[in-house]
Amino acid sequence: MKSLAELLERAKSSKTKNLVVVGSEDEEAVKAAMLAVEKGVVGKVFLVGSKKTWTDYDAEFIETNNEQQSAEEGVKIVSSGRADILLKGLVKTSVLLKAVLNKDWGLRGSGLLSHIAAVEVPGLDRVVFITDGGMVIRPTLEEKVAIIKNAVDLMHRLGYQKPRVALICAIETVNKDMPETIDASVIAKMAQRGELKGCFVDGPLGLDNALSLEAAQVKNVKSEVAGQADLLVVPDIHSGNFLGKSAVYFAQGRIAGLIVGAKAPVVVVSRADSAESKLLSIAMAACVG
Amino acid sequence: MKSLAELLERAKSSKTKNLVVVGSEDEEAVKAAMLAVEKGVVGKVFLVGSKKTWTDYDAEFIETNNEQQSAEEGVKIVSSGRADILLKGLVKTSVLLKAVLNKDWGLRGSGLLSHIAAVEVPGLDRVVFITDGGMVIRPTLEEKVAIIKNAVDLMHRLGYQKPRVALICAIETVNKDMPETIDASVIAKMAQRGELKGCFVDGPLGLDNALSLEAAQVKNVKSEVAGQADLLVVPDIHSGNFLGKSAVYFAQGRIAGLIVGAKAPVVVVSRADSAESKLLSIAMAACVG
Repeated sequence: MKSLAELLERAKSSKTKNLVVVGSEDEEAVKAAMLAVEKGVVGKVFLVGSKKTWTDYDAEFIETNNEQQSAEEGVKIVSSGRADILLKGLVKTSVLLKAVLNKDWGLRGSGLLSHIAAVEVPGLDRVVFITDGGMVIRPTLEEKVAIIKNAVDLMHRLGYQKPRVALICAIETVNKDMPETIDASVIAKMAQRGELKGCFVDGPLGLDNALSLEAAQVKNVKSEVAGQADLLVVPDIHSGNFLGKSAVYFAQGRIAGLIVGAKAPVVVVSRADSAESKLLSIAMAACVG
Repeated sequence: MKSLAELLERAKSSKTKNLVVVGSEDEEAVKAAMLAVEKGVVGKVFLVGSKKTWTDYDAEFIETNNEQQSAEEGVKIVSSGRADILLKGLVKTSVLLKAVLNKDWGLRGSGLLSHIAAVEVPGLDRVVFITDGGMVIRPTLEEKVAIIKNAVDLMHRLGYQKPRVALICAIETVNKDMPETIDASVIAKMAQRGELKGCFVDGPLGLDNALSLEAAQVKNVKSEVAGQADLLVVPDIHSGNFLGKSAVYFAQGRIAGLIVGAKAPVVVVSRADSAESKLLSIAMAACVG
């Protein structure tokens, strides 16, 4: 992808997806959902919540008594096939995700839930994905593998044939005092042995030699990923979070984000996100939901 | 500071500083040093190394037999008062810093050596400093305090009266599973009790509400730092490293960097750094050396 606007085009041209706002007391989330309808990004909207604080939206309202019930009802609308995407409204993320993972009526997938962001910045000629800067705090090696699988699966759905996956660290060499460089080496080798399908994987790489062919050449780092990364796998939540936010607050770029790994995508937007960013996140969900 | 160009102006107008290239076999480092002379950023240059690979530079050459000797001779030129700044050439950083920390003839300061970067990006109306994305891998609480003191001392020398220091984390609330949010809270309280002088300190803050007043208002985060941070204190080397590199590779901005905490600044540039970035780093050293 060259730009995040492609998410909007792709969402409009693919099969219409319906969306559930879980906790429709959050006017901002409702507005984001209705903007997605207006832009042709989603079809029908379900609003699940305790009060009908809005009046003039063309959406189905499901009344509930508390946030647990909102989460359960919202998830059931998706698991029953009436909708495809969850959008977090006024409900704690933990409550929503507990419902998503319910064994009886939830949307539990095969593996771990993880967060993936997509950024568009002036310094890059392509969209770059970042995982996980929003969900798993300090992933183990096994969790990193699951996080990569989630992201690669999403990227395949977005049309990437073999995404280029960079495990980024402060340096591109192995340092025993930086365990993330050890994990990166191990995962790169696992991929080389065929344990991670449908992608190119390399690491450890620095952010510079992951993204810029020139920087990779200067440091003599050569691989199918170096300088051409589509996906940046970060060691922990805070480093990924800083990187995603730097796309907005340093680079004046754009960001979209999703929680993946369940049977349906979950969109968690923040009040500080722009309306455009919320729309792009819903569009990304509509592309893969 | 509004822009990193102010470093060049400030270096030119302050007392002339001399620079030592340690390991002058590195032609790139020598070029950077001579450009700094040409631009009026430094005065005299000493080139310490095993071979005189260059011929046409107006600099004093000190011949050595190996990198240990280069490091020792280079450091002694500064500790004897003949020069003010060290620039790493073809010598391992560890060898150079060991010489800097030598108890007999080194430049050991009161505390820890740490790295500080300054970035200029389109998303911000001011220069923002980042520490430590280049030296201390995973600082303890005590080391974070020392890192902040080093950075605040540097910023005072650059003309900041009370820099606004944000301890950034993935979130702006305390989460017991994110030890960096605990450290941030503790250090913010220490500052409030007067243990960190000459600065405003707050944390945990998200990158968004540290940098943007609008984001801070949306999340109702209020302090003398929120939305106005001059210095971002990161939890570990990789998160700071990503943030610094994002200023260049995401935002097409500019970066300068230094190792501080010794009696003289140490400039460590990377081959992947632009000539401009190297010059700005030397200028920052000349301002504070």
